[in-house]
Amino acid sequence: MSKSIFYHAGCPVCVSAEHDIIELIGKENVDIVHFGEDASRIPEAEKAGVKSVPALVTPTGNVLHINFGASMADVKG
Amino acid sequence: MSKSIFYHAGCPVCVSAEHDIIELIGKENVDIVHFGEDASRIPEAEKAGVKSVPALVTPTGNVLHINFGASMADVKG
Repeated sequence: MSKSIFYHAGCPVCVSAEHDIIELIGKENVDIVHFGEDASRIPEAEKAGVKSVPALVTPTGNVLHINFGASMADVKG
Repeated sequence: MSKSIFYHAGCPVCVSAEHDIIELIGKENVDIVHFGEDASRIPEAEKAGVKSVPALVTPTGNVLHINFGASMADVKG
């Protein structure tokens, strides 16, 4: 199984959700992408259907928007 | 580790998220509660902080609101 990807932007809601996701599915099963550190990944996330962060894209390509930290517009702004 | 609890209300968004969560964390690690089948669990979910469904309450008590299917007001209505 390929990994899930967790996209976030360093907001408090994001960091909290990151801890929960790592706890639930295991650190080895998820790649963490922080837009504040790598904004070049934003287009890829949008293409996957990410509309807000934090969000988890599953190995099957489904997007789970978790709680609400920031919209993609905020992330880019 | 105790189980997570996944609360939902049978909406399409809920059912899709349920599949994803089971796939990600394993069926044996999550209890599924369907309000349409057991409305008596609604107060417990609200007490845990669930504001919309589908939502996952982690073993540590954090609430992850996943995408957006329906508000708790809709569920009770």
